[in-house]
Amino acid sequence: MTRTYRLLISCPDASGIVAAVSQFIAREGGWILEANHHSDPVTGRFYMRNEIRADSLPFGLEEFCTRFQSIADELKLDWRINDSGQPHRVALLASKQAHCLSDLLYRWRSGDLSMDIPCVISNHEDLRSFVEWHGIPFHYVPVDRDNKAVAYQRMKELLAEYTVDTVVLARYMQIIPPELCDLYENRLINIHHSFLPSFVGAKPYHQAYDRGVKLVGATCHYVTEELDAGPIIEQDVIRVGHNHLPEDMVRLGKDVEKTVLAHGLRYHLEDRVIVDGRKTIILD
Amino acid sequence: MTRTYRLLISCPDASGIVAAVSQFIAREGGWILEANHHSDPVTGRFYMRNEIRADSLPFGLEEFCTRFQSIADELKLDWRINDSGQPHRVALLASKQAHCLSDLLYRWRSGDLSMDIPCVISNHEDLRSFVEWHGIPFHYVPVDRDNKAVAYQRMKELLAEYTVDTVVLARYMQIIPPELCDLYENRLINIHHSFLPSFVGAKPYHQAYDRGVKLVGATCHYVTEELDAGPIIEQDVIRVGHNHLPEDMVRLGKDVEKTVLAHGLRYHLEDRVIVDGRKTIILD
Amino acid sequence: MTRTYRLLISCPDASGIVAAVSQFIAREGGWILEANHHSDPVTGRFYMRNEIRADSLPFGLEEFCTRFQSIADELKLDWRINDSGQPHRVALLASKQAHCLSDLLYRWRSGDLSMDIPCVISNHEDLRSFVEWHGIPFHYVPVDRDNKAVAYQRMKELLAEYTVDTVVLARYMQIIPPELCDLYENRLINIHHSFLPSFVGAKPYHQAYDRGVKLVGATCHYVTEELDAGPIIEQDVIRVGHNHLPEDMVRLGKDVEKTVLAHGLRYHLEDRVIVDGRKTIILD
Amino acid sequence: MTRTYRLLISCPDASGIVAAVSQFIAREGGWILEANHHSDPVTGRFYMRNEIRADSLPFGLEEFCTRFQSIADELKLDWRINDSGQPHRVALLASKQAHCLSDLLYRWRSGDLSMDIPCVISNHEDLRSFVEWHGIPFHYVPVDRDNKAVAYQRMKELLAEYTVDTVVLARYMQIIPPELCDLYENRLINIHHSFLPSFVGAKPYHQAYDRGVKLVGATCHYVTEELDAGPIIEQDVIRVGHNHLPEDMVRLGKDVEKTVLAHGLRYHLEDRVIVDGRKTIILD
Repeated sequence: MTRTYRLLISCPDASGIVAAVSQFIAREGGWILEANHHSDPVTGRFYMRNEIRADSLPFGLEEFCTRFQSIADELKLDWRINDSGQPHRVALLASKQAHCLSDLLYRWRSGDLSMDIPCVISNHEDLRSFVEWHGIPFHYVPVDRDNKAVAYQRMKELLAEYTVDTVVLARYMQIIPPELCDLYENRLINIHHSFLPSFVGAKPYHQAYDRGVKLVGATCHYVTEELDAGPIIEQDVIRVGHNHLPEDMVRLGKDVEKTVLAHGLRYHLEDRVIVDGRKTIILD
Repeated sequence: MTRTYRLLISCPDASGIVAAVSQFIAREGGWILEANHHSDPVTGRFYMRNEIRADSLPFGLEEFCTRFQSIADELKLDWRINDSGQPHRVALLASKQAHCLSDLLYRWRSGDLSMDIPCVISNHEDLRSFVEWHGIPFHYVPVDRDNKAVAYQRMKELLAEYTVDTVVLARYMQIIPPELCDLYENRLINIHHSFLPSFVGAKPYHQAYDRGVKLVGATCHYVTEELDAGPIIEQDVIRVGHNHLPEDMVRLGKDVEKTVLAHGLRYHLEDRVIVDGRKTIILD
Repeated sequence: MTRTYRLLISCPDASGIVAAVSQFIAREGGWILEANHHSDPVTGRFYMRNEIRADSLPFGLEEFCTRFQSIADELKLDWRINDSGQPHRVALLASKQAHCLSDLLYRWRSGDLSMDIPCVISNHEDLRSFVEWHGIPFHYVPVDRDNKAVAYQRMKELLAEYTVDTVVLARYMQIIPPELCDLYENRLINIHHSFLPSFVGAKPYHQAYDRGVKLVGATCHYVTEELDAGPIIEQDVIRVGHNHLPEDMVRLGKDVEKTVLAHGLRYHLEDRVIVDGRKTIILD
Repeated sequence: MTRTYRLLISCPDASGIVAAVSQFIAREGGWILEANHHSDPVTGRFYMRNEIRADSLPFGLEEFCTRFQSIADELKLDWRINDSGQPHRVALLASKQAHCLSDLLYRWRSGDLSMDIPCVISNHEDLRSFVEWHGIPFHYVPVDRDNKAVAYQRMKELLAEYTVDTVVLARYMQIIPPELCDLYENRLINIHHSFLPSFVGAKPYHQAYDRGVKLVGATCHYVTEELDAGPIIEQDVIRVGHNHLPEDMVRLGKDVEKTVLAHGLRYHLEDRVIVDGRKTIILD
């Protein structure tokens, strides 16, 4: 895989931004493999992603940043840059259900998703053996009514120890406290088993069954303090009918959940997502 | 098209129902072209649709009904039967937007949907000429804040005059009064421009835009007194992204709306829908 | 899970078949959980699946068969019956790619797919450890140009030893010899990585790339002697664009392949598939 | 609708192209509403589309072209530019089936598709009245075995008289002669009623039925001399089953055909399509 730098920019829309940025990159001989822009006429903001071959530049990431800062200051750019050679460090949180965890671990070990998985944390022991077969440390952090503060303190320490930058709730069945939501803002990813904003909260498939909908879905989103209301990264649905009981929907929904989570996570890992308020811009 | 009788049955589930019904049909030499059953383990009810060649029976519909009634009494069946030779009489209600109306009229004139359209009623004059080109009477019934009672009385009379059995709201932008909902219970079909239960009420695409969803949809449902809460017949969705403004969603959504309405209406016209509480059973 | 008998029937269409069969079941007190019929007006054949609660009958499977045979003789029925309490014994054949194997093993260990997996056979050693973690015997049967006869003889013996009834090619990259195709007729399932009949044979994603198609797909089918031409059980597609290289299509296609294989296999495991000539009837 | 210029560029990939082009636009104060790039690592070509507000430039289209030509010469760009204020002039060709024609005419009269339709040409009289209701001239040009040369000469004259730039075959059931294919290269759009490359030629739904596929589709493509082999613009599919006869597939397929044609045509009308060899790049 070619090593690349991914430069993400967000700023008030104005004439000349693309020119200035692409001129800067071209002047240094930078080879742009992929470029995506978006102008939002409602918010008046401009978004841009450039993926640049690392070996086309005569200097490293640090120097790039130093030099780029002056342009950024001039044009008032919010920006960040990531090196594909430094994959995201992703902690997976799971409970008992294995479909998302299992799918992500397959994609990791096959190289389909480029990330490091320094650890898996679970409030149950069920998945230990499967995780450990992969050579990944498994941490059991039980959560019950009385120990929540302790449990989340432990989790916070683990995430810090492993220098995790992204946390994925792979059907982790506990509500994350606001402090952790803040600490991992726009880096804490959940898969909710409904097509949000329909069926927020617990047992969405049962809610879907009661309402008699003809499609059920899944939503991959960043977690915020407000339950199931964070910026949506990806969604998809699957057809159901009167002959599907809630347990059938649970079963069918798993296929959508794991695919939607994997696709949403990919956007995040490839540094394609910019969060703006309650929404995401996916520069793909 | 072969003329058929469509026999729909709903009853408490029990052993021997299929045997009794199919034996009755077979005894008279009835040729079943299509049979669909559904047992609901939650409600304990059984649903059945048989489509029988009319010319395979030695008697007509009336005689069939008389003879079948004794079985129905014995087994406590809710049932109805329709003759495909007597297509439903469908009134279309529209406002200014033409995409659903235009699509339904095409399907009607091409024979894709088997129905009679005795009239179109609208609260605007815009679509008169297009409707009249089809040779269908167009009635302008304006609705404004002060004349609602009068307007709906007029509409009720028109529907009665034309002996309409089914009313389709083809993006008709007015709320139907409870009296008409009751009168046309399970025969009054709406297309709502969202994937219900998300985005009930007005401007669903704007709501979808504000929430940043990645799919928008449409829902075909029977109208009940509670706004956008009636039994769902059909739904579908289409992918959108950060680059779609509300007006783009409106445009893209039209394709889904017209297809979902046409598919939902087809189920109704072919007598495939049984409503049970808040849900539909589609015997297809 | 309620234990059930699944009765599949295929015969020339005629009046009275449903009546006779359902009467036979009802007479013995049999409780039909699910019933599906299909009449094919082109071939003039009738197909039927009844799923009957085992505990609703006063006798076992053997006695059922004895008694049913007389009806079957009279009505000239092709029929078979399977006991859900005796899950299919499925051998998985794989090569190096793990996505389908990994997905099927997850569905097996989570109970999503009801089957026994007595063994996995592969022409490579790569997946041994992952398979053995599941407690499933792994057999390495290398296949090369010069030893094909020996290799397939060994495979045949293994399948016999393990009394396998169904063989799944989970991206097994070797062509199965006609003898094995015959031996496991309608029980040998392949996943082909294209939307057949497009792109038969090797490297379908490269063929798709060269042709510039906007969707790529996967096909689950029974294997026959003619390459990629057997009866199709299930298919699906995924959207691609000009920005996808063949390797991207390979990656994206995996999600479709594993889902399509799992869905197709489920139909087979639940005894929902009747093969008629080059086609399948899926009684679902 | 804001008036825009759409600048399309295709050239060998190299560092500095985006910089040069965007600098040129910025220097003149041009406001880019939408920008899309694509680098193809296989062919080594670069593609770019800029949509620029017309009123942000201090000069008109002609002057833009003059000034841009020097950059184009320097960087060896293939380029073209279109003014959204000069909609494409599209002739529709149809036979007897109305679903695509009817759908396109609706989109035209509602403003959903921005184009002029100077005329409709048909080898049958069936659709005359419907077309003429729209105020569009209808030309009957019968085509039979013996008069083909005359018919296509007449068609060519009509297209010239009406200064048509794009021809859409809206289920026009005749093969277009090579001369016309050449004359309207990359401007002659067909909708084929299968998911190409499956089922080339006549009666694709019957071919699909015979093969027992589980999805049928439609393909919108530019017409070339080789039958159904031109560059694909858009495709989609719909699910079918063993219970669908060829005539059901025909009916279901119509929904896909009309949507796929409309979407493909939109890309063309918005100047989003660059043809490269046998493929399209859709800059969307």
